[in-house]
Amino acid sequence: MNDINVYHTIFQKYLTENTFSQQPVELYEPVNYILSLGGKRLRPLLVLMGCELFDNDLNKAMAAAMAVEIFHNFTLLHDDIMDAAPLRRGQPTVHQKYGINTGILSGDVMMIHAYRFLEQGTDPKIMPRLLQIFNKMAIEVCEGQQYDMVFENRKDVTIEQYIRMIELKTSVLIAAAFQMGALIGGSTEEVAEHLYEFGRNVGIAFQIQDDILDTFGDPEKFGKKVGGDIIQNKKTFLVLKSHELGNATQLNDLQAFMNTTTENEEEKIKAVRYIFEAVGVRAAAEAEMNNYLKIAFQHIEETPLSMEKKIYLKSFANDLMMRQT
Amino acid sequence: MNDINVYHTIFQKYLTENTFSQQPVELYEPVNYILSLGGKRLRPLLVLMGCELFDNDLNKAMAAAMAVEIFHNFTLLHDDIMDAAPLRRGQPTVHQKYGINTGILSGDVMMIHAYRFLEQGTDPKIMPRLLQIFNKMAIEVCEGQQYDMVFENRKDVTIEQYIRMIELKTSVLIAAAFQMGALIGGSTEEVAEHLYEFGRNVGIAFQIQDDILDTFGDPEKFGKKVGGDIIQNKKTFLVLKSHELGNATQLNDLQAFMNTTTENEEEKIKAVRYIFEAVGVRAAAEAEMNNYLKIAFQHIEETPLSMEKKIYLKSFANDLMMRQT
Repeated sequence: MNDINVYHTIFQKYLTENTFSQQPVELYEPVNYILSLGGKRLRPLLVLMGCELFDNDLNKAMAAAMAVEIFHNFTLLHDDIMDAAPLRRGQPTVHQKYGINTGILSGDVMMIHAYRFLEQGTDPKIMPRLLQIFNKMAIEVCEGQQYDMVFENRKDVTIEQYIRMIELKTSVLIAAAFQMGALIGGSTEEVAEHLYEFGRNVGIAFQIQDDILDTFGDPEKFGKKVGGDIIQNKKTFLVLKSHELGNATQLNDLQAFMNTTTENEEEKIKAVRYIFEAVGVRAAAEAEMNNYLKIAFQHIEETPLSMEKKIYLKSFANDLMMRQT
Repeated sequence: MNDINVYHTIFQKYLTENTFSQQPVELYEPVNYILSLGGKRLRPLLVLMGCELFDNDLNKAMAAAMAVEIFHNFTLLHDDIMDAAPLRRGQPTVHQKYGINTGILSGDVMMIHAYRFLEQGTDPKIMPRLLQIFNKMAIEVCEGQQYDMVFENRKDVTIEQYIRMIELKTSVLIAAAFQMGALIGGSTEEVAEHLYEFGRNVGIAFQIQDDILDTFGDPEKFGKKVGGDIIQNKKTFLVLKSHELGNATQLNDLQAFMNTTTENEEEKIKAVRYIFEAVGVRAAAEAEMNNYLKIAFQHIEETPLSMEKKIYLKSFANDLMMRQT
């Protein structure tokens, strides 16, 4: 198996070689723009890693990796429009830079090009199966995004519903990327299913960890401003778990903070953090995160992979949780 | 071959049986809504007709017909957002009824479901080829929509560029629907290519005719208000052809009208119509329309279809031009 950076370099090269040079330039410039903003390239990297568990010839997996990365960026592009987000990775979002109409249409054409990479760049023997996985995943991601929007206006979201939402919105893409890579590498369906479950559970753990780090993380390691969720009054895992575990006074206090916008952001962050600690949701969230990670690791154990590869996958997941990849 | 109404009835039944009943309802209700607004169902009908030229078992073609209709309605949904259109077929547009964010996301999931119908409902032996045709077509439709938006802000659009735009935005979908149906029915690639060209040229002729009818049509037959393009100062075939054929005075007069919005709409429509007649673009447009229709018919002649089927296809195209289907 390779170091993560090797997969990153290989994929980055493929991405550059496949810059969209088609006409009309007004349609494709935003596509190239968002794909050039960088990021960890986690999803295509998982396709390559999944493949290499079974076959060292990563060329087989490049088009599927590209399909997954284009699809992911298409969802970011349209989500940014829906969230009216001005920035993405510190740069203007596509709709901010090129307008909403171009943002919608460039996103649309990205999705189709994702399908085209799958169709044209993967082994015809396995393409229909990859398409099946991709379709199921893509539908689920849209459903997850819709739940996310619906939940914003609801007060009665349960932890179970929240987990299902982040699973659909985020984890199934991580899971499907890994499963597709494994099948391209020649894995059996059964083993690929375990790798899907590994990815799905790691994805959920990752999102819970994201909620924890946004509130309690070290700003330098986390890479973004800590406390953003609190300032935006977001219904994170911590908030929803407080509804389960908190007493009436704690919940009243929390709700009072969540009904306000404040000038003194640092004060609000500190106060809400204090409530979370008092309720005990930080520990509860960490326990839940670790539980998903444990299930993920069990699925790795169910595979016939070598001890070396199993250790590789587990330390990859751990590094991901620690935001060290 | 069947009467058009028979295909319409068969497809309408399939569409009703395949109403989206999934969760979340907030995502799928707008999908069912736009699919229920009706319309001629021209594109799925062409898939069925294309199939029946070679095989009477239309069940084979239903999923591809559905894919094509869902894709078409996805483009209408997103185009309506981009155009800020309040009405579609006399009813509120999706974004008007459910909001822009839901409109974007429901459109996205429609596109994926179009792919899913192709993947799950067509013969695995031919599915990869259908996917290839579908991908190429879908990319071209997006490119056509982008050209349409770009051309709105340009003064130097040529007739050639305009034809290419309507070809991409509209005709390739009609062409691909017919080609896919034919291949599903068992046609050879060569014959399916002629049917593609038939559809493509009929589609272009249809759009030119649309521009003519919007200005010169009989309101009762045309089904929408005549003169709308003139009031909206749209750069139609008639306007662009005037730039080729008109003298300086005529073009100045036309430009003067196109720079104004007026209270007296009927007067403006009459005056611009008068300029078009004087320049001779009505006749020129009809000649161009007939030329595309002639090319379409030549492609029918190139096929080994029976005389009866050839006559059927030509009278179908003629009825379409006369807006009698």
